[in-house]
Amino acid sequence: MNAPTAPSAGQADLSRLSLNTATTKHLSLAECVSVAEAAGLGAVGPWRDRVQEVGVDAAAAMIRRAGLRVSTLCRGGFITGSEAGQIDRALADNRLAIDEAAALGTSELVLVVGGLPAAYPMMGLDHTDADASDRDIVAARQRMADRVGDLVPYAVERGVRLALEPMNPLFTADRGVLATMGQSLDLAADHPAQAVGVVVDTYHVWWDPDLRSSIARAGREGRISSYQICDWSLPLAANTLNSRGFPGDGFIDFPTITGWVAEAGYTGDVEVEIFNETIWALPGAETVQTMGERYAALVLPHLS
Amino acid sequence: MNAPTAPSAGQADLSRLSLNTATTKHLSLAECVSVAEAAGLGAVGPWRDRVQEVGVDAAAAMIRRAGLRVSTLCRGGFITGSEAGQIDRALADNRLAIDEAAALGTSELVLVVGGLPAAYPMMGLDHTDADASDRDIVAARQRMADRVGDLVPYAVERGVRLALEPMNPLFTADRGVLATMGQSLDLAADHPAQAVGVVVDTYHVWWDPDLRSSIARAGREGRISSYQICDWSLPLAANTLNSRGFPGDGFIDFPTITGWVAEAGYTGDVEVEIFNETIWALPGAETVQTMGERYAALVLPHLS
Repeated sequence: MNAPTAPSAGQADLSRLSLNTATTKHLSLAECVSVAEAAGLGAVGPWRDRVQEVGVDAAAAMIRRAGLRVSTLCRGGFITGSEAGQIDRALADNRLAIDEAAALGTSELVLVVGGLPAAYPMMGLDHTDADASDRDIVAARQRMADRVGDLVPYAVERGVRLALEPMNPLFTADRGVLATMGQSLDLAADHPAQAVGVVVDTYHVWWDPDLRSSIARAGREGRISSYQICDWSLPLAANTLNSRGFPGDGFIDFPTITGWVAEAGYTGDVEVEIFNETIWALPGAETVQTMGERYAALVLPHLS
Repeated sequence: MNAPTAPSAGQADLSRLSLNTATTKHLSLAECVSVAEAAGLGAVGPWRDRVQEVGVDAAAAMIRRAGLRVSTLCRGGFITGSEAGQIDRALADNRLAIDEAAALGTSELVLVVGGLPAAYPMMGLDHTDADASDRDIVAARQRMADRVGDLVPYAVERGVRLALEPMNPLFTADRGVLATMGQSLDLAADHPAQAVGVVVDTYHVWWDPDLRSSIARAGREGRISSYQICDWSLPLAANTLNSRGFPGDGFIDFPTITGWVAEAGYTGDVEVEIFNETIWALPGAETVQTMGERYAALVLPHLS
């Protein structure tokens, strides 16, 4: 497939573009901040490992000094466990993530909710003997909803929103039993809009026949926490998690989906989160330049 | 993960179990019929290549002589094209498939509707220059619906139902823009229940948060064309199409989903369609024995 013809990103307004640190996986937080600032981006979306490496206060200061926003913090979640110890540990870790988000000055903590207990051994996760044969997705989804409820008061007190990330059904078993925006919004509806939001990640939701109406609903209900862009490329990588591509390299119709997000009233940052071994091997500045070009060609013209 | 402990399949009633010929990919139709009959199965679900090898009338006679039903014919579809020649060729091939289904005495012709034009080159499909950059999923879905409408009168005249198969979003781009049972039922609603049905294939729909209500709706509307069972196994195979497993080897909760299908009033065959290189390397009789054991353990007790 041909990459789109892009205007020079140097001429485009990249002030709503955000670099998720997983896109430049091998860069330190300081390096991510530096390449984002140099390219004229408006924000970064750090993962917690990169924040914890330098300490959350130093991370916050570094990002602020560069004049960048923190679009989201990635990630909390993994809250489908059923055993008391699993639940306590998951709640403690998510409270810490909420504290980190507050310290970084972002309102949006992305939650990847976790998969089926039967997949915990394969994922190297803390598990009981009973987990290994537990394929009950209905019960796992109920526990996820219960844990979100447990976390809401703590998050609201700190001005942080739990940003539910529905995941492509490719990942339902092992990473996220939350599969659609509609399901996420139904769960969110039990809580105030400033407490629980949803992430619109093109990779996860592009295929959804209800996507346009779900994005409109999310906008109407004030719950769009983040708009994240990366492409569905084929064939999938051997590690399917790392199959994402730059916008324009796969099968997603970015102009159309971006138009729906804009119609829904979203005015926040547009984050690029790509897991891809080939892209990880590129120099960070080159990755950010390509991000900017694709954003300028496929997304920015449809954002307003 | 441990395989379930099964009662001997020799003691179980396998009269509703059907062998899809893709499960024993390297067997001829005669060999498939022979192993299915020997194991006490009630039906086979042939693919068109296996039927065409011997001729449709000989195939029908062979299956009838063995006392087996034809649960479905696999498959028609690939109807998302936009160019006049593509449309004509797709309609002609689907009319031929309808004729073959009628000759085989099955009411159910499974349709895999096809993916985005942008994926046609990768799939080795007939395509135009414009197709290579066409990622418009909304338009592709409309063309699919239009072609179903074109085919309905021909199918109804021959007593054949177009059995829409929603596909796991893993395959939206390259194989099927129909992603959920709800979307399939909305499309079917424009046509009589004897004209358009839906396939409940566990591999494709197990993750759907609306699965229970969609199965109930399909039953209420008289549209369950087929119940097909195979498991979501991880990691995915290098060719992702071939990642399916025997029920019990992956992450799908067969007792629960089977219970929902039974509640919806389905009394038809339960077809096993597994694409898996390792299973294809087994002797056919061994594959059918394992199918029977897993069916007896995980599905049959929940079918009524």
